[in-house]
Amino acid sequence: MASGPGARTTVRLAEIAAALGVELRGDGSREITRIGPLEGATPQTISFLSQARLRHLLTGTQATCVIVREDSAAEVLAQGAAALVTADPYLCYARLTRWWVQRHRAAPVAGIHASAVIAEGARIHPSASIGPLVVVEPGARIGEGAIIGAQCFIGDGAVVSEGARLHPRSILGAACVLGRRSVLHGGAVIGSDGFGFAPTEGRWEKIEQLGAVSIGDDVEIGANSCVDRGALDDTVIEEGVKLDNLIQIAHNVRIGAHTAMAGCVGVAGSARIGRHCTFGGAAMILGHLEIADHVHISAASVVMSSILRPGQYSGVFPIDDNASWEKNAATLRQLHTLRARLRALEKKSST
Amino acid sequence: MASGPGARTTVRLAEIAAALGVELRGDGSREITRIGPLEGATPQTISFLSQARLRHLLTGTQATCVIVREDSAAEVLAQGAAALVTADPYLCYARLTRWWVQRHRAAPVAGIHASAVIAEGARIHPSASIGPLVVVEPGARIGEGAIIGAQCFIGDGAVVSEGARLHPRSILGAACVLGRRSVLHGGAVIGSDGFGFAPTEGRWEKIEQLGAVSIGDDVEIGANSCVDRGALDDTVIEEGVKLDNLIQIAHNVRIGAHTAMAGCVGVAGSARIGRHCTFGGAAMILGHLEIADHVHISAASVVMSSILRPGQYSGVFPIDDNASWEKNAATLRQLHTLRARLRALEKKSST
Amino acid sequence: MASGPGARTTVRLAEIAAALGVELRGDGSREITRIGPLEGATPQTISFLSQARLRHLLTGTQATCVIVREDSAAEVLAQGAAALVTADPYLCYARLTRWWVQRHRAAPVAGIHASAVIAEGARIHPSASIGPLVVVEPGARIGEGAIIGAQCFIGDGAVVSEGARLHPRSILGAACVLGRRSVLHGGAVIGSDGFGFAPTEGRWEKIEQLGAVSIGDDVEIGANSCVDRGALDDTVIEEGVKLDNLIQIAHNVRIGAHTAMAGCVGVAGSARIGRHCTFGGAAMILGHLEIADHVHISAASVVMSSILRPGQYSGVFPIDDNASWEKNAATLRQLHTLRARLRALEKKSST
Repeated sequence: MASGPGARTTVRLAEIAAALGVELRGDGSREITRIGPLEGATPQTISFLSQARLRHLLTGTQATCVIVREDSAAEVLAQGAAALVTADPYLCYARLTRWWVQRHRAAPVAGIHASAVIAEGARIHPSASIGPLVVVEPGARIGEGAIIGAQCFIGDGAVVSEGARLHPRSILGAACVLGRRSVLHGGAVIGSDGFGFAPTEGRWEKIEQLGAVSIGDDVEIGANSCVDRGALDDTVIEEGVKLDNLIQIAHNVRIGAHTAMAGCVGVAGSARIGRHCTFGGAAMILGHLEIADHVHISAASVVMSSILRPGQYSGVFPIDDNASWEKNAATLRQLHTLRARLRALEKKSST
Repeated sequence: MASGPGARTTVRLAEIAAALGVELRGDGSREITRIGPLEGATPQTISFLSQARLRHLLTGTQATCVIVREDSAAEVLAQGAAALVTADPYLCYARLTRWWVQRHRAAPVAGIHASAVIAEGARIHPSASIGPLVVVEPGARIGEGAIIGAQCFIGDGAVVSEGARLHPRSILGAACVLGRRSVLHGGAVIGSDGFGFAPTEGRWEKIEQLGAVSIGDDVEIGANSCVDRGALDDTVIEEGVKLDNLIQIAHNVRIGAHTAMAGCVGVAGSARIGRHCTFGGAAMILGHLEIADHVHISAASVVMSSILRPGQYSGVFPIDDNASWEKNAATLRQLHTLRARLRALEKKSST
Repeated sequence: MASGPGARTTVRLAEIAAALGVELRGDGSREITRIGPLEGATPQTISFLSQARLRHLLTGTQATCVIVREDSAAEVLAQGAAALVTADPYLCYARLTRWWVQRHRAAPVAGIHASAVIAEGARIHPSASIGPLVVVEPGARIGEGAIIGAQCFIGDGAVVSEGARLHPRSILGAACVLGRRSVLHGGAVIGSDGFGFAPTEGRWEKIEQLGAVSIGDDVEIGANSCVDRGALDDTVIEEGVKLDNLIQIAHNVRIGAHTAMAGCVGVAGSARIGRHCTFGGAAMILGHLEIADHVHISAASVVMSSILRPGQYSGVFPIDDNASWEKNAATLRQLHTLRARLRALEKKSST
């Protein structure tokens, strides 16, 4: 059962409909205590149906209200439930969760916790909230309404813009900029050194990384993800980009606006990634290449050279029972030879 | 050489045998200062032999005592060493390490370090140990004998059950539950937001994640691993699960009891994984699928659809010298065509 | 534009040439405010040309000075820029960045920040710098000139050698040793427990990890990377090794001197890796195997057995448009059968 913060309080349906600006069919006085999935919905639950293939879940649902498209509204009402009718139920559900959290979760208190260590010369807006055991270095700026969770670290000259939020124990390194309303999750490290070394006589000599990280507005970066500072210029994450957990963004990468990456993705140095792209989990992008706008990379696929045309791209060895895999993998190591043998046969056969 | 905490102190063999309840053959008054591998064992070392194929390592060993099966006991004694005789030497070795640590490492002191920041309303059992610079938010509960290492963060309403341990700098987020005797390693983030966004007009709108994470008893979660909170219901890690380092568990995943995952594994949203499964390092599990009990996934293999039968599954491109790989990989991109050409030849040949 | 710390101050060219011991051709009185790439270089920028294939970027450059090999010096001067002439421009650039940072960034102040929690019995050299909210446990030793960033954790008996640096929020666990001048980046966890469990009756019993981690001189370990302590002996990272971000090194691994690994690499337990090797991003190395010196593993390749000969090795499924991949991947699952059919045809054809 949902036990997350703010998951259980009471709201009347009419209030929800008004807040979201969505048409309500059914009794607006009914009470909701929970947002929940259709499957296993209990009374006092508001749910949603976003995919036609799940329509069978409406039958016999106990939900008090379901967010649906017009074409499912009658079926919801026939179940004795109310319906919120909208062209995009999934989007409506997203907005409901945000309204719900705003209504039910206490916002952090403005001000600086007594245990935080704020360097002289740091500028913190009085409406910002600085949690316990935070460290803010000299020259950092923290904007209006920003929320800095417990144990965060804000480096020298870093900028946290208006309304941005750092969840507990995230890092915004020296001179890095986090855009308006952008979010860092726990353990994220923004502004670690890029991996730059010059080889000489069998050793590696450090190249100091003199750039920073520039993160646009409305970006979200997941737990324990890393974005390295640029070698000379900045690593750039444009507005609206969403990065999941445990993602590695190397130095000098540029990620275009509104691109999204699922967990465990890695992007090597100086890759330039377009806008509105998506990357499945554990996709790997090699360095010094370009990916166009609207490119979609499947999970666990490896991009080894530039992709200049929009589309869906994949490259994963299909999983199989171990014995079959062993035989096929062994044969794969002779594939080039097999092709040559096939050619020889074709030649012979055509004579 | 082993230099870990508690690795060097002196114990008599008879005391070890008694503590573990295992039969000792040889002189119980001999002294042990160290647990060590057979290879390169020095005197005063207790070692173990768990795999028959390593039996040759017994010859000439300097170990004072070896934990072995009955069928190797005579050989151990013939080397002048003592033998601890048991049906499962590896298990006996595991128990020896735990007894050793309990005997030699100082347990953290009960009580709350003066530098910890404990919110009003948090309930902390007097026998629990709260390290320096820990943050505990309101409504959190910390059970009997729990150990919270330095710089940890325990969110609002989170529960640390009896005997659980958080190593320094791990996070248990708001409303998340950690079971009895469960362990989080450094940098682990439990309860980060699931990666949920609704697409609209080329942008992504945040879906607040209202669930939490529910972790059973005797679970262990490795360093810098992440477990996201559920979107509506909870993400669930059942009892006895062991997760290694740098693992990503997405929202609404359920991992069945006693399943183990090696480092760098990723599990996408809403995957349901059975009990007693194992996953090799860097295996990737896509979302919204099911894996049965007793399924074993090889390292670096990608599960793209449900696996409903127990067994070992693999899917990895075999590594080769770079030139051979290039030729085979290029040919692989024409494999479907090769099959068609083969069919054509077969047809021709059969006429 | 570069906005990193220390990126903007003024230096005369002659001073740079003298500091690096490199021959200057052109006017030494010209002023430099920035190190920048050739592409888009602005006046007062010093740049470098390390790859012949980028030589066209010299034409029309606005850079005030370019670091080049002898064979490009005339072309630089013809552009009206000065030239620093050296046999290895990339190495010269590396050294310039280090000199630049030393000259322009304020070094952390020696001494212990008032908010740090230092246990009795820890030994800290008076020239070391201990940042805010650091925790140092008993028996730890911190050497001359070492820098411990904010919120770091130094475990019981750990050793930070002379000149080593821990960036904010990194962990050096109990009994672990960090060599001279070595660097840990934010979120790195050194000394987490190895993943050791003995199976018994469907459950896993913990094997306490009694070893530590031994890290040599001049090692660098990236953000949120993990190195597990050994089960009995130590995990060993030899001198000069460079590890990027989000890398997992399991227990009892040994990494030979001057080996470098890019982001997201994983190395399973007891692997022995040679000297002067390189690993591309997300390469995965299975356990209990050996890799010789001078082996180079391509990105995303999986090493499943020992590699005893130097060379470049690869194993990645080539990415393709999704429809082509689906067909080829499906055929790949029948590859062994295809080979048998080819053989049958060959037999028939040869009769």
